[in-house]
Amino acid sequence: MESHLNRMRACMREEGMACFCCTDLSNVKWLTAFDNVFDDEPAHLAFVSDDEAVLHTDSRYADAACRAACGGPWKVDASGGFHARWVADKLSRDGRKAPGDGLPALAIEDSMSLAAFRRFEKSFEEKELPPAIETSDFVLKLRAVKDDVEIEAMKAAQAITDAAFEHIVSFMRVGMTEREVQLELEEAMRHLGAEGLAFSSIVASGANGAAPHSIPGGKVLESGDMVVLDFGARKGGYCSDMTRTVCMEYATEEAKRVYEAVRTANEAVERMLRPGVTGAEAHELAERVLEHAGYGGKMGHGLGHGVGIDIHEQPNLSPRNTEPLCAGNVVTVEPGVYLGGILGCRLEDFGVITPDGFEVFTQSTHELVII
Amino acid sequence: MESHLNRMRACMREEGMACFCCTDLSNVKWLTAFDNVFDDEPAHLAFVSDDEAVLHTDSRYADAACRAACGGPWKVDASGGFHARWVADKLSRDGRKAPGDGLPALAIEDSMSLAAFRRFEKSFEEKELPPAIETSDFVLKLRAVKDDVEIEAMKAAQAITDAAFEHIVSFMRVGMTEREVQLELEEAMRHLGAEGLAFSSIVASGANGAAPHSIPGGKVLESGDMVVLDFGARKGGYCSDMTRTVCMEYATEEAKRVYEAVRTANEAVERMLRPGVTGAEAHELAERVLEHAGYGGKMGHGLGHGVGIDIHEQPNLSPRNTEPLCAGNVVTVEPGVYLGGILGCRLEDFGVITPDGFEVFTQSTHELVII
Repeated sequence: MESHLNRMRACMREEGMACFCCTDLSNVKWLTAFDNVFDDEPAHLAFVSDDEAVLHTDSRYADAACRAACGGPWKVDASGGFHARWVADKLSRDGRKAPGDGLPALAIEDSMSLAAFRRFEKSFEEKELPPAIETSDFVLKLRAVKDDVEIEAMKAAQAITDAAFEHIVSFMRVGMTEREVQLELEEAMRHLGAEGLAFSSIVASGANGAAPHSIPGGKVLESGDMVVLDFGARKGGYCSDMTRTVCMEYATEEAKRVYEAVRTANEAVERMLRPGVTGAEAHELAERVLEHAGYGGKMGHGLGHGVGIDIHEQPNLSPRNTEPLCAGNVVTVEPGVYLGGILGCRLEDFGVITPDGFEVFTQSTHELVII
Repeated sequence: MESHLNRMRACMREEGMACFCCTDLSNVKWLTAFDNVFDDEPAHLAFVSDDEAVLHTDSRYADAACRAACGGPWKVDASGGFHARWVADKLSRDGRKAPGDGLPALAIEDSMSLAAFRRFEKSFEEKELPPAIETSDFVLKLRAVKDDVEIEAMKAAQAITDAAFEHIVSFMRVGMTEREVQLELEEAMRHLGAEGLAFSSIVASGANGAAPHSIPGGKVLESGDMVVLDFGARKGGYCSDMTRTVCMEYATEEAKRVYEAVRTANEAVERMLRPGVTGAEAHELAERVLEHAGYGGKMGHGLGHGVGIDIHEQPNLSPRNTEPLCAGNVVTVEPGVYLGGILGCRLEDFGVITPDGFEVFTQSTHELVII
């Protein structure tokens, strides 16, 4: 299996980039593939050229980074300070070492803050370096195609998530608050071996379910409520993501109709996903199924998104994505129907595009669960 | 008590800014003071002028934002799309409505991504608007002075954190892994009423303690280990932050000496903090105390930082901060000593600068706890 660093270098050569400065934390994690080094602080820069790979970090991370780098292609420079100045110093020094070669074309990521960019500009001007090339989603596009190690990590994360769903279904009762259910669900994932959560879990009951980003609170689960459970674990540095919608004690006729529509949309899309299909086509199929069931225009969000180190990655299954999917893309399929003031319902699996179809990681049932 | 929005407007007038676009999520939270609206997605822009306050968001947040805004000064526009285009359209429209007044000076935050900034540039050019003014930490500086509501939230968060410390001390045993202790600690905070964690907790035993950002893992707590516990809760949208270092079964002579040095540094600083003292002076006092005890140069990080909606805010107690502190600043005081390959020790309280001193929120003991 080709290392992420080598894939990066191949792509840089194609684009005529001599050096690349990666500052996005998730990109740094992906490129270095270091274990147990990074927390949530964006304190690192990964510098890549054809013959160098250096992590510029600070003393807080020095030991862990040096251990992780040992024996591999990465060097660690834990001198700290502004990344911009470090890069400018380095390029200027390297340029002087090789007169006549000129200064190498350096690419930066436009996910960096404007403040960081202004520091790059200033440091480059001071060293009389040419301006850096601004790139959008360069590494993110590489990350969109997962390798076997990444797929195994996400399957492991999803196995935890499925087991947590089984647990929470046996735990939930009318009279509990959304918040209580959320706490139990998140503890279950941790006890099942999650390193952390992929995101803050959603437990949205009754009319709260109609807000796709509802925050679990003191509302009590009531008889007849539909409850949207959207949650994911983190394992081996990678996320899982699933949604199931259950009913408390019984399902109203409306709930049954909505559920059936959402399930039909989910399964139709999962059958059609394969290399060459576009995100827009997948989204539009789901919209058509929902419309046919009488719920046109009731989704209000994109059908799905990529998952990996981040919970939202490329590619998106959205009307705007007209790029064909390819093998190795890991995406969610999460059609939903939201009836303001009444209920919400979403059914979300995630899986990988294979050479001839779509392998779903999620193992939990598509049947409507009534608790 | 003056609203955050009014403080913002007063400051904008002083600086001659007619309109301000706030895109940093924590700044948006602070400005609007909306409850139960925002998750982790930076999907919002708060537009402030002297007579308008509008949250530009998308349909996912429409209901919650409208409920939160009801009866207050904020309007909600959930039309979605790029913030940059929305702002340019708005300014252009407003400008046309008031010919002769010219177009108002608009400020943006340099914490936005370079990609977002390029969209602002493009949208402004398209509408023939003058370029926006780039600001650094404009809202962050206002956030550095806390009001009573914010201080109460942080005291409540710290009460949870103190109670979790009491619990974890009764739970920890030689033979447990760092990860087990972390899980228990974090569950305790949630069960005690935390909305979430302020950050991923650190449990670093023995030599792991020497890395200030160690990630808890499979290492087992051993007899004689010093264990650094650094953790915090989130309550009412605000963070707490504390560190205690305990010893498993007994304290080595070295551990006792280190602990005493760190405690002395902590208490010396907490006695000297008051309005007018600079962050640099506080840091330097801690360094002097540690040096006097034989641990000069063994801290390797700043003495403390502001805390609020974010776990790291202004002002910093660091050698670079030569600004005087003022009443309402909430800061941590966290001297540490790190002996590579042997142990780490840190003692962290947090509290508020009062008109005549420093009120510590943290109630847990400064005595060395031996478990």
